[in-house]
Amino acid sequence: MPADALSSALLPAGLHDVLPSEAAHEAAAVERLLAEFAAQGYRRVDPPLVEFEENLLSGPGAAMSKQTFRLMDPHSQRMMAVRADITPQIARIATTRLKNEARPLRLCYAGQVLRVKGSQLRPERQFTQVGVELIGALEAEADAEVVLLAVQALTAIGVPHLSVDLCVPTMVSRICAGLGLGEDEIRQLRAALDRKDSAAVAAVGGTAASLLETLMSASGPAERAMQALAALPLPEGAEKDRRRLTDTLALLRAAMPNLTVTIDLVEHRGFEYQTGLSFTLFSRAAGELGQGGRYRAGAQGEDRGEPATGFTLYMDTLLRAVPAAKAPGRVYVPHGSGWETARRLRADGWVTVAGLAPVTDAAAEARRLHCGHWLAGGDVKPVG
Amino acid sequence: MPADALSSALLPAGLHDVLPSEAAHEAAAVERLLAEFAAQGYRRVDPPLVEFEENLLSGPGAAMSKQTFRLMDPHSQRMMAVRADITPQIARIATTRLKNEARPLRLCYAGQVLRVKGSQLRPERQFTQVGVELIGALEAEADAEVVLLAVQALTAIGVPHLSVDLCVPTMVSRICAGLGLGEDEIRQLRAALDRKDSAAVAAVGGTAASLLETLMSASGPAERAMQALAALPLPEGAEKDRRRLTDTLALLRAAMPNLTVTIDLVEHRGFEYQTGLSFTLFSRAAGELGQGGRYRAGAQGEDRGEPATGFTLYMDTLLRAVPAAKAPGRVYVPHGSGWETARRLRADGWVTVAGLAPVTDAAAEARRLHCGHWLAGGDVKPVG
Repeated sequence: MPADALSSALLPAGLHDVLPSEAAHEAAAVERLLAEFAAQGYRRVDPPLVEFEENLLSGPGAAMSKQTFRLMDPHSQRMMAVRADITPQIARIATTRLKNEARPLRLCYAGQVLRVKGSQLRPERQFTQVGVELIGALEAEADAEVVLLAVQALTAIGVPHLSVDLCVPTMVSRICAGLGLGEDEIRQLRAALDRKDSAAVAAVGGTAASLLETLMSASGPAERAMQALAALPLPEGAEKDRRRLTDTLALLRAAMPNLTVTIDLVEHRGFEYQTGLSFTLFSRAAGELGQGGRYRAGAQGEDRGEPATGFTLYMDTLLRAVPAAKAPGRVYVPHGSGWETARRLRADGWVTVAGLAPVTDAAAEARRLHCGHWLAGGDVKPVG
Repeated sequence: MPADALSSALLPAGLHDVLPSEAAHEAAAVERLLAEFAAQGYRRVDPPLVEFEENLLSGPGAAMSKQTFRLMDPHSQRMMAVRADITPQIARIATTRLKNEARPLRLCYAGQVLRVKGSQLRPERQFTQVGVELIGALEAEADAEVVLLAVQALTAIGVPHLSVDLCVPTMVSRICAGLGLGEDEIRQLRAALDRKDSAAVAAVGGTAASLLETLMSASGPAERAMQALAALPLPEGAEKDRRRLTDTLALLRAAMPNLTVTIDLVEHRGFEYQTGLSFTLFSRAAGELGQGGRYRAGAQGEDRGEPATGFTLYMDTLLRAVPAAKAPGRVYVPHGSGWETARRLRADGWVTVAGLAPVTDAAAEARRLHCGHWLAGGDVKPVG
């Protein structure tokens, strides 16, 4: 077996070693994202890798049950679970240990999550998850803040051609319910909308069909979508969603007039636990970079727990969209040059690679050790 | 149950949430340590949290077998193990995926490890492990490099009153074997030395007893210990260890004349897998900060695998020795101040905390949100 096939066979499917240049690239990006979050008052928390199963998988965590590894805790004799998502942990911290902290509470995190299975699209079973949660605020200003923060942070690490797709995953159900449709009909309509199947939507007939067809065809550039939506007679519950979209879009436009914003009026897949305004972040080059939106922290259901919003970034996709920073120059410091010499080079921004033994051709040794430069009689010279 | 007891009961023993100020403190320290490692040519790698049990727990990893959680991999139907130590993973990467990279190979890492049980001294079951490995170098210069790198990095993050205790955990066995003692006698002597029990050592009698008593009493400040050691007639195997101590100490003195160095000539506990010069890092205030030393990467036994050295830092102890950096000032930016205003404040180094709704007393709101300042008519004012 060739070396690379052998070594990849050493690891379970979907798990991999992140090797030097890639690991530095990821660490630098995570560091910068967290710095951007911190600059807007989001404070870092680090929940543990494992928790009691019954806590980690209750409430919003339940969605990940099948994707979660279990461990027996020999100490308590209770089952523990390895986190497959950090968001429920942050919600737990906010509503328990930090429940007496002033609201809105701004928290951020970065850490590893582990999943039982990869998907066809994303075979990895271990991810770096990075995100923020804004807890205890109902205002559209909160929705706008997290979208703007995500855009700001992604721009700071160099993601080009960024766009935001807004949606309200609960709106279609509210419209249908407002028009008196039953649960089965709503389910059928949702499936038809997911397939973007106008014929099936039309077949349901009545007011709902024409409303939903308009929603489906109006999805796209934000202002056009909002114009179409404004002209529709919406049932009361959905009217609230429309107002939130309008207000949030206005806040986004005021802050970042040139941001590419689209609105999908029928989207709900991947937002099963969102309860209001949600969004997906895209880069033209790399695809989906992350998503976020409203949920209830600390309990399930629309009227329980605390109002919250936030987002999660997918570091694997994201790194494909971000150019790696130029690595600082490496200089080979021959054996016997002395600690102080190397220290001064580092103070000047060089990476120093010390020779551990004398060599006859220092330039060749520098090249062998991937150094672009070497120290020759006190001067840094290119290896040529 | 009071809130805090309730919330700590939410987590299994030995696992905890790292809350805001502590999490930022740790992240900043880890970041700085890795920057110091990188500046000396150590490149970061990130192995996965879990691997196949048979790989993770073979060779040097075997020591952690009882401390390691297992998981069944539904994909391969094979047992996986959650890492309890990152060092064996780095050795695996060096000797498989990076086996064709030029030697010496300098790698560093930071990540979470999970253990089945905490100890009485250290009840935590999840740690942040940070360290370096220098692979493929036999020279004393390599031993000195990792000690100096550890000291440099710890000094950079502000650890005061640092000291290094050198030892050669294999020396006592080599001396005893060189003097023809049997395995049982060596074990008894080791136990006596561990208890610093001179009487029991003396009871063994003969040349060994007097040699070992001298070693035990000479342990302490480096130069004094080396002087005592120099006067001893050592068997051949131990002579090599003495030379390595002498050479390494000279290199340390040349680089950092004022470093506090002690030598323990009979230490071996905690160094079961070390095969040569080893060391422990101490701070007067916080105790043991980390340890390192020589081992064989990629296989067990003194003559197999590649020569390697490195160290691991214990972030929990370490953080107790390091003052937290002063957090940047937080300024409350009242509702409606505008994105651009807040952006300019951040560019000036402020953390901005946005008001999501109008308030009547902005200074009071700033105080409530832990901001020392607020933005009043374009000016940053202290909340008073």
